[in-house]
Amino acid sequence: MAHTEVFRTELTPLTFLERSAAVFREKAAVIYGDRSYTYPELQRRVYRLASALARAGVRKGDRVAVLCPNIPPMLEAHYGVPLAGAVLVSINTRLSTDEIAYILNHSGSKVLLVDTELAGLVEPARGQLQTVERFVNIVDLPGGSRLDGPDYEAFLADGSEDPIAIRVEDEYETISINYTSGTTGRPKGVMYHHRGAYLNAIGECMTSGITSTSIYLWTLPMFHCNGWCCTWGVTAVGAAHLCLRKVDPGEIWRLIREQGVTHLNGAPTVLIGLANDPAAKGVKLERPLTITTAAAPPSPSIIAQIEGLGARIVHVYGLTETYGPHTVCEWQTQWDEVEPVERAQIKARQGVGFVIADPVRVVDEQMQDVPADGETMGEVCMRGNNVMKGYYEQPEATAEAFRGGWFHSGDLGVMHADGYIELRDRAKDIIISGGENISTIEVERCIYQHPDVLEVAVIAIPDEKWGEVPKAFVTLKAGTSPTERELIDFCRERMAHFKCPKAIEFGELPKTSTGKVQKFILRDKAWGSKGKRIN
Amino acid sequence: MAHTEVFRTELTPLTFLERSAAVFREKAAVIYGDRSYTYPELQRRVYRLASALARAGVRKGDRVAVLCPNIPPMLEAHYGVPLAGAVLVSINTRLSTDEIAYILNHSGSKVLLVDTELAGLVEPARGQLQTVERFVNIVDLPGGSRLDGPDYEAFLADGSEDPIAIRVEDEYETISINYTSGTTGRPKGVMYHHRGAYLNAIGECMTSGITSTSIYLWTLPMFHCNGWCCTWGVTAVGAAHLCLRKVDPGEIWRLIREQGVTHLNGAPTVLIGLANDPAAKGVKLERPLTITTAAAPPSPSIIAQIEGLGARIVHVYGLTETYGPHTVCEWQTQWDEVEPVERAQIKARQGVGFVIADPVRVVDEQMQDVPADGETMGEVCMRGNNVMKGYYEQPEATAEAFRGGWFHSGDLGVMHADGYIELRDRAKDIIISGGENISTIEVERCIYQHPDVLEVAVIAIPDEKWGEVPKAFVTLKAGTSPTERELIDFCRERMAHFKCPKAIEFGELPKTSTGKVQKFILRDKAWGSKGKRIN
Repeated sequence: MAHTEVFRTELTPLTFLERSAAVFREKAAVIYGDRSYTYPELQRRVYRLASALARAGVRKGDRVAVLCPNIPPMLEAHYGVPLAGAVLVSINTRLSTDEIAYILNHSGSKVLLVDTELAGLVEPARGQLQTVERFVNIVDLPGGSRLDGPDYEAFLADGSEDPIAIRVEDEYETISINYTSGTTGRPKGVMYHHRGAYLNAIGECMTSGITSTSIYLWTLPMFHCNGWCCTWGVTAVGAAHLCLRKVDPGEIWRLIREQGVTHLNGAPTVLIGLANDPAAKGVKLERPLTITTAAAPPSPSIIAQIEGLGARIVHVYGLTETYGPHTVCEWQTQWDEVEPVERAQIKARQGVGFVIADPVRVVDEQMQDVPADGETMGEVCMRGNNVMKGYYEQPEATAEAFRGGWFHSGDLGVMHADGYIELRDRAKDIIISGGENISTIEVERCIYQHPDVLEVAVIAIPDEKWGEVPKAFVTLKAGTSPTERELIDFCRERMAHFKCPKAIEFGELPKTSTGKVQKFILRDKAWGSKGKRIN
Repeated sequence: MAHTEVFRTELTPLTFLERSAAVFREKAAVIYGDRSYTYPELQRRVYRLASALARAGVRKGDRVAVLCPNIPPMLEAHYGVPLAGAVLVSINTRLSTDEIAYILNHSGSKVLLVDTELAGLVEPARGQLQTVERFVNIVDLPGGSRLDGPDYEAFLADGSEDPIAIRVEDEYETISINYTSGTTGRPKGVMYHHRGAYLNAIGECMTSGITSTSIYLWTLPMFHCNGWCCTWGVTAVGAAHLCLRKVDPGEIWRLIREQGVTHLNGAPTVLIGLANDPAAKGVKLERPLTITTAAAPPSPSIIAQIEGLGARIVHVYGLTETYGPHTVCEWQTQWDEVEPVERAQIKARQGVGFVIADPVRVVDEQMQDVPADGETMGEVCMRGNNVMKGYYEQPEATAEAFRGGWFHSGDLGVMHADGYIELRDRAKDIIISGGENISTIEVERCIYQHPDVLEVAVIAIPDEKWGEVPKAFVTLKAGTSPTERELIDFCRERMAHFKCPKAIEFGELPKTSTGKVQKFILRDKAWGSKGKRIN
């Protein structure tokens, strides 16, 4: 039987909202401050947005950009834009004017939905924007500035609540383009298709255990891999989206307590903030809380600290190119009895591919699997339904990333004997000292064990004798003051001496909006014009 | 970008075993009596089966049949046969020799794997089998008889444990053919594709909440819609398959207690058996137990009874043509506070389409949706990724079932105002009395409320004045003896009089292997040659 004769529904996350609006008619779908919407109300707002975009001239395949924190209009854009047949370009809210202008032009976005607090970032670049025909102002906070165009609510009021049928003709159509925050070079536009978004959204729910009774707190930016596809996954199961404009540990603890939050996602830096906030003292969770973490590899000590508060940590790993998380440190019952410290070490590994993903590989330069010995480093490679379509209008970068038929993550890791991967470093972060590889993550983990250390980042610095040696940048906990010497000695008692930092600098760490430490800034300071290789 | 350039992995449940064998290396995957296998062991047995089938001449697209209770080889066939590129034909173990021969011939099966206890059903038909080239004898119990061919374990021993790559070139390839137990006419072979099996398997896990720590007890026959795709779904999440040769309520309670069963699926008749078994008295569940039920609509009283024992009931509905369950009575938190009797009535509804399914419709004869008033009856229709490819080599029956672009279930139901469907009857079961429709399910539910009633089935019998009137067949609980008059009066106090049974007969009810009451047998008795319409 030919395909056309078989019942086929294109896989698209747009069906999730259709179903939840039909099924969950009374419960809160979106909660923000004192306001809340049901799923039918969310759907009506989405219909309004999609029809208003169509009236504004948005056609199938056009790009619509959004620059907005984790507030309801940002979630609505994840449905309204693709329902209008367009492609969503969610822009990182921490970027500079120049970067935002580049993304708007490169994506050819026709419309920009922008929060008034962020409009000031766009205003100076207005003269450079080549394709944006219309601004829509999202007014959430008082103050801020407006660009020339309607307010979001007025724009919606001009739209229609009449139902709009899903018009995805092929599940490989692009649903979104997410520009990587690329620490070097221009950002690249990672294209997601509907099929991958659908499958990864379900994968997130299965992995974190999100169900219809869950309350999902939006600590992870929705602009980051479309919120690891949870913008769609939380809707799929009919859970509640609890929006949060700004990550603030005290506020997060309040919401956990008062709203019964069951799930939140975030980088380890969010976990560190939560664990060290005064509100964490004596906390007693009334509902089970699952925190799914990724981005920078979390240290075993922060895992143990958070689990000590009663939350369950799910550790996942992925990249923008894999729709967010692609692997999970799948928990095994035989580890339940293991001592907390060792448990945390087991859980700090990046693990295995999602159920909906292909198996992840760690390969050498000839694309051969490295031995599963937990020691031999190789590059982590992925493929499958939740690997991007490619970089938007960058065929050469796409071909380079996909060489050998696999997506090359640029992350270095090992394969353990039990089939779990563990990251050792970004390819560009690895330290080569006297010919030996030193994993900055391994050095960081060692330093994290010191009780005074809040955060640490290790990079290579130039060394006349060894080529490169490790240097640590450390943020201390309030009220502590260990010396550089004390910390280095602490490491020398625990690690091969060649791996120990030769210098330590104390202070705040520079970070991206998603909580990744910006090692390139630290490296720039250390290397100046010496040109540390970047691959 | 053309599809061929995008990373695409065909959706197939075969990937579930690959992943779980790689990830869950130590825990029990398959438990049967005193034996248990890990996922890697299951995978090796599957490689042996697939390679042995290939050596026996099985080629891509060939059909391989299996006639076997819920023991490990039956589960292995669900992976080994498609891994060999072949199509699995699981035959209902309660069929007659003639029916089995028909299915083997119609499907053109080349190999039959058959349990020695069931071989006696095949033996008399050997001369009629046109395509079977080889029998493989599954020896589980002592006694029974062997057909000419190797024992299953010897067959596997001749195979190889070398890994076999999945060779699904197109996710729409057929993975299995399930012959409907059709109460009239010849059985029809319902074709499942890999994509639908993959999605419905995940849908089952999401719906019942099956996770990696679950223990799934095989009370539902694996031959029935491939065990509602749980043969694949339980593996997807890495849960344990607890095999069970024969459904016996006392044994089920023992396994729940001793093995920590968390999930089981079954028709209401299984629930009735469980609730009324002496072992149910004073039962205390140590782990949460979810019982997912479907097939015949469960009465609110049996739902309340089972939930009174501490188990959670998930009520689903579907047909062989929809890969098993397609809808679920999705629970809403606002119902948590409702009184138990009303809760059970809410839960007795068939509900809404799965997350992975398209929305279900109730339509009139012009394919228009009936009003969502909970009263107007129409036919339940489905379509989407988990609706069959069609009936094997029956294009006319397929076209008839798919008329108007939807699959016609043959079930009559209503659409409630909240978007939940509720079955009223099989189209062929509805009673038309003096021009009024009477739902046999409604009459059955009324009778179920009588404390002495264990099971009931209602059919139409001929009546000179009204055309048809209801008659009830009742199985009483042990030690009770209400009269026909008492039961009829009980109904007349609770229901419009024209709906009340005009006659009641006491005794056992004839049932199919999946627990459906065979009303056609009751009807044949009542109607004889009068020719009650069958549609």
